[in-house]
Amino acid sequence: MNLFDKAMGFRFACKHFDPNKKISQNDLDFILNEARRSPSSFGLEPWHYLIIENQELRQKIRPACLNQSQVTDCSHFIILLSRKPHFFTAGSDYLKQSFARNYEDTDALNKALTMFDGFQKHHLKPDLENWAKMQVYLSGANMMTAAAYIGIDSCPIEGFDYNDLENLLSTQLANFNKDDYAVAFCIALGYRNYQQTPQIRYPLEQIVTYIK
Amino acid sequence: MNLFDKAMGFRFACKHFDPNKKISQNDLDFILNEARRSPSSFGLEPWHYLIIENQELRQKIRPACLNQSQVTDCSHFIILLSRKPHFFTAGSDYLKQSFARNYEDTDALNKALTMFDGFQKHHLKPDLENWAKMQVYLSGANMMTAAAYIGIDSCPIEGFDYNDLENLLSTQLANFNKDDYAVAFCIALGYRNYQQTPQIRYPLEQIVTYIK
Repeated sequence: MNLFDKAMGFRFACKHFDPNKKISQNDLDFILNEARRSPSSFGLEPWHYLIIENQELRQKIRPACLNQSQVTDCSHFIILLSRKPHFFTAGSDYLKQSFARNYEDTDALNKALTMFDGFQKHHLKPDLENWAKMQVYLSGANMMTAAAYIGIDSCPIEGFDYNDLENLLSTQLANFNKDDYAVAFCIALGYRNYQQTPQIRYPLEQIVTYIK
Repeated sequence: MNLFDKAMGFRFACKHFDPNKKISQNDLDFILNEARRSPSSFGLEPWHYLIIENQELRQKIRPACLNQSQVTDCSHFIILLSRKPHFFTAGSDYLKQSFARNYEDTDALNKALTMFDGFQKHHLKPDLENWAKMQVYLSGANMMTAAAYIGIDSCPIEGFDYNDLENLLSTQLANFNKDDYAVAFCIALGYRNYQQTPQIRYPLEQIVTYIK
């Protein structure tokens, strides 16, 4: 049996986690590393993962997340952050440093930076903040699939008040700065303590159109 | 060896495809089916995939995509569409029909619809169009990873003029309507005809913060 297919069948939005089962550091490293290897536009990797293990902080986060029990009951609660637009505008150190990994000589680097600047100014229909978040969603998808591949459950969470959550993080965490990061979405990771609900999807014929 | 890890190492943004190698329908079905099984907010699956095989149309699309050769040289050029906001606002048939798959009685269905309406009005910081696109990115990530799992290359493409591409699709395709769908991004699928470039990523320590 194709194990990728098995993983996609195993994954569901797990609403009830066993609060006593913890993911090993080894497994967590695997999951985070696979997320890290995700594609991103221009290889800019505009993501950062906050792994909230601290229960006191989770109790504070839970009300901002519509009081969902996954926040406190999962093994690892992950907040996926996206970098703010200033990292991607002309002159940004992050932009230069990221591109420099791919270009050895300065001319080629500067040409690539100019090209990107044109791209972000003229071709990017979503604004830079949403564009960065979209890249983070790519890595979040691989995070959940990687987890499922090794039998670990997940629940993607968008049901929260963005302002409440970002304000809470900026008061509680010394290294979270709202000027630099936005919350893209959250993923609770852990082990289910109930039976998987059936996977309901529209049939392939309804979501695919061939132009031959 | 963990085959998921192997797939994530195999995947890279393939810039040069072998124009003579075609993906079998069997493999394509696998890839599309796995994308279809992706999670989406409230299970709303706001995606549709246009599989552009027609070479004449691809020649027309290529200039809108910054003339990238992947558009014409890949085996299957996929345009990932996202549903427009009107599908997710109160009273939408699509919303009702999608939710109805999960709720047998009308009371529970109506309660869920009201809940979602509150969510989209009050909690959704990204606008509905970008929110829908973010879900499409989840499915696109799984599409590329599924392809890599079976040795098929991909290139995610955002480098295009959204208006040009959407206008082109609406004049060329009878069943594409700009009022109903937006282009989220594109994925070229096929087989590389050059050596894979090295995978460059920031180290895990730089993109992860633990709050213990």
